[in-house]
Amino acid sequence: MSTTAENTAASSASGVPAEVRDAILTVSERARKARGELATARRSRKDETLQGMADALVENAPAILSANRQDVEEGRAKGTSEAMLDRLRLDEQRIGALAAALQELVALPDPVGNVVRGRDLPNGLHMTQLRVPLGVVGAIYEARPNVTVDIAGLALKSGNAVILRGGSAARHTNTVLIQILREQALAHGFDADIIQGIDEHGRDGATALMSTRGSVDVLVPRGGRELIQSVVTNAQVPVIETGEGNVHLFIDASAPVRMAVDIALNAKTQRVSVCNSAETLLIHAEAEEAGREVLRALSRAGVFLHVDERARGWLSAAAADSAQTATDEDWGTEYLALEMAVKTVGSLDEAMDHIRRWSTGHTEAIVTNDLANADRFVAEIDSAAVIVNASTRFTDGGQLGLGAEVGISTQKMHARGPMGLEELTTTKWVLRGQGQIRP
Amino acid sequence: MSTTAENTAASSASGVPAEVRDAILTVSERARKARGELATARRSRKDETLQGMADALVENAPAILSANRQDVEEGRAKGTSEAMLDRLRLDEQRIGALAAALQELVALPDPVGNVVRGRDLPNGLHMTQLRVPLGVVGAIYEARPNVTVDIAGLALKSGNAVILRGGSAARHTNTVLIQILREQALAHGFDADIIQGIDEHGRDGATALMSTRGSVDVLVPRGGRELIQSVVTNAQVPVIETGEGNVHLFIDASAPVRMAVDIALNAKTQRVSVCNSAETLLIHAEAEEAGREVLRALSRAGVFLHVDERARGWLSAAAADSAQTATDEDWGTEYLALEMAVKTVGSLDEAMDHIRRWSTGHTEAIVTNDLANADRFVAEIDSAAVIVNASTRFTDGGQLGLGAEVGISTQKMHARGPMGLEELTTTKWVLRGQGQIRP
Repeated sequence: MSTTAENTAASSASGVPAEVRDAILTVSERARKARGELATARRSRKDETLQGMADALVENAPAILSANRQDVEEGRAKGTSEAMLDRLRLDEQRIGALAAALQELVALPDPVGNVVRGRDLPNGLHMTQLRVPLGVVGAIYEARPNVTVDIAGLALKSGNAVILRGGSAARHTNTVLIQILREQALAHGFDADIIQGIDEHGRDGATALMSTRGSVDVLVPRGGRELIQSVVTNAQVPVIETGEGNVHLFIDASAPVRMAVDIALNAKTQRVSVCNSAETLLIHAEAEEAGREVLRALSRAGVFLHVDERARGWLSAAAADSAQTATDEDWGTEYLALEMAVKTVGSLDEAMDHIRRWSTGHTEAIVTNDLANADRFVAEIDSAAVIVNASTRFTDGGQLGLGAEVGISTQKMHARGPMGLEELTTTKWVLRGQGQIRP
Repeated sequence: MSTTAENTAASSASGVPAEVRDAILTVSERARKARGELATARRSRKDETLQGMADALVENAPAILSANRQDVEEGRAKGTSEAMLDRLRLDEQRIGALAAALQELVALPDPVGNVVRGRDLPNGLHMTQLRVPLGVVGAIYEARPNVTVDIAGLALKSGNAVILRGGSAARHTNTVLIQILREQALAHGFDADIIQGIDEHGRDGATALMSTRGSVDVLVPRGGRELIQSVVTNAQVPVIETGEGNVHLFIDASAPVRMAVDIALNAKTQRVSVCNSAETLLIHAEAEEAGREVLRALSRAGVFLHVDERARGWLSAAAADSAQTATDEDWGTEYLALEMAVKTVGSLDEAMDHIRRWSTGHTEAIVTNDLANADRFVAEIDSAAVIVNASTRFTDGGQLGLGAEVGISTQKMHARGPMGLEELTTTKWVLRGQGQIRP
C-alpha cells in the first residue's frame, strides 16, 4: 500500500485548502526521509547535538527575546490576559531554564537499542526485542515556548523526527527557536528536517497534520481540554491523550487530621494550573474533625468551595455563606484555579463509586490509616496514578525520577501516566538464524 | 465527565438504530461493571475457570457440533466456498484443540500485578509501576469459532471483560460457545457478563461497539484487510491493528544458494493464507544462481509468479511463458495464495527503498552472508519483525515462545508484533507515603 496515496485520500476529506494540505504532506515526507539517519545515530552524537542546542539558545538570547517581545506586544494589543502573557513571556533566566532542560536530557540514558527481551529459541534462532524510535512525532500545543524546546529535545534524544505546531500567539518566538535548533541539527551532521515547525500554516496546518496517517507515527496534543478533545476526535494519526486531570482526594474516616490538612492544601494550592492538582475533595462523614480542619485551611488559603449540605455544616458561618452548593457540573469540572468541589460520603465504596463516575483517570489519592481500605483503593481505582497518604502533585516525571516528560498520559494504550523518552519508542523483533525454516 | 453522556453523544452520530445503540451501550456498561472483580481476581481462580471452560467445551461437544452443522448448512445453502466452510467447520478433534488452547493459557504466567518498575524515592515515597488489565476488550472478527474461545480465554487470563462480535456465518456456533463460557464464569463465582456476545445485533451492533469510547478500552479487529480498515477508520475506541502482512524476502548477492531456496520455499508455501507468509521476493542482480534456483523451486511448488524482465530471463522457457509482468499493484498486494511478486535489484539500498515504499510493516527477511548488510538491514528496516537467514513464518507468538496471541500488531503504538497476555494490560503507578507533600 502506498503511503502517499493513503495520505492524499485522507487529507482531501478534511476540507483544508489544497496548498496547505500539500505543504504539510511535504513537511511530513521530509520528516520521514530525515528520520532514517537520526533513528540509528549513536547516543554520543545525539548528546553533542543537544549540548550544542543548549549553548546556542543562550548565545542567541537577544534574538529570542526580541521575537518574544513582538509576540507579547501583539498579544497585549489583542487584549490577552496577563496570566497568558506571563506563560508566553521569556527572559534571560527562562532561556537559561530552556537550555538547562536540554542539558538534563544529555544526562538521561538513551532508550534506543535497549533489549526488552532476548533469548535463543530451541531451533537456534537468536531472538531479541529491541527499543527503536517511533519515527515521526507531531506535537500540537498552546502558546508556551518552553514546550517547543522540551519536545524537540525529547524527540531528538529518542531518535524521532518532530513536527511542531505551537500556539499562534507564540509564533515569532517559536520561529526563532526552531531556526536555532535546526541550525544545530545541521551543524552536527543531521538533516535539519528532523525538526520542523508548521505555525505559518495556522489552524489548517494543524488539521492537515492530523490526517498524515502513514507519515506521522504519533500526535501528542499538549494543552487544555478543548485542544486535546479536538485532536482526539479529528485525528486519523494515532494520538496520545495527555493531561486532563479531574483529580480526587479522599479523606477516609481514619485519616490523621494533620496529614489530611497538609495533603489537601498541597494538592489544591501548591500550583493550581496543573493537571495533577486536586479538584474534588471527598470526605468520609465520620471524619468530621479532619473535614472541619481541612475545609477551614482551604478557605483560609482562598479556595472557593462548592459543597454538599453536610460539608456546609462543617464550615464557619462566613465560609458557609460564601460557599456554593455543588452540582453535577462541579463534579465534572477541572477548575485549574483556587476552587474545589467537596462531597461527604458514607463509605469507601461511595467514594470509589463517585470517582469511577467522574474521574478522568489521571490521579486519585486517599488519606487513611486503615490498611484494608488503602489496599482496596489501590486495587480498585482504575487511574494512571493511585496515591496513598501523599499529595496528588507527585504524579510528575521529574518527581518520580523518570526525567523530562512529553506530558502525562490519561489513556491506557501505549503510555499511561508520565511519558518520558521510553514512551517515544516502540519495539522491533529481530531474529538471526542460520537458515531455519518452519517444519 | 460522565462516561454515559459521552457514549450517547458519540453513538448518536453513527446512524445506528436507537435500539441497537442502547443495547450495545447496556452490554458495554454491564462489561464495565462485571470487570471489577475479574480485574483483581487471583490467578488460581482465573486458572480454575479456564480449566472448567476447557472441560465444559469437551463435555458439551454434541451441542456445539449441532449448532455448527446448522451454520455450515446455512453457509452451503448461501453458496459459501468450501475453503470458507472448512474454516467454519468443527469436529471432535477441533473442539479438543479449542479446549487444549485454554489449558495452555492455564500454564502461562499471569501478567497482572507484575512490577514493571519500583523504587523508594528520596522523600520516602514508595513507588511501583504495576501491570493491570486494560478493562473491557472488544473483538470484531470473521467466522472462525476458535477465535471466540481464544480471545475469551486470553481476556479472562489477563483480567479483562470481553465483548465478542464474530462473523454472522458462525452465529449459531458462537452462541453456544459463549453460553458455555458464561456458565463456567458463573460457576466460578464471576459475573457472567465478563464474556458477552453481540452477534444478534449484526453489523449495526459492530458499528455501535466502535462508538463506545469510555466504556470499551480497546478494540481488536482480527481478519482480512477490509474488516481491519473498516474498524480503524470508523472506531472512536482505541484500536490495535493486526495482521496485514505484505512480507518481503530479500536474497542478497552473497546468499548461500541452498539456504535461499529453503527459506523462500518455506516463507511462501508452508502455509499461504497467513500474514507472515512472504508475498514479494527481492533478488540481488548478482545472485543469479540463487535467483534461478529459487524461482525454479517456487515454480515447481506451483507458485504463480509476477516478475520483472531480468527475473523472467532466469525462468525456464515454460515458466517464462506463464509468468506475468509485475506491476505496482503486485508490489502492493498481500496474495495469501500460491502467488508471488519477484523483483531484481541492483543493491541492498534499492531493496530497502522498495520495502520502505510497499511494506505494511509486519515482517521482512534477508538471506545474506554479508555481516555489514545484515546489520544495516536490521537497523534500517522499520517493521515489527526483521529476520536474518530464517523464514518469515517465525513471526508468531507460539514460535517465539510467547504463548497464545490475540493477533500480530502491525502498528507501533502499545503493541508491535505478536500480542499476547501482556499486551492486554496497561500499567498503574502506585505511590505509598506517610504524608509527603511537594515543597
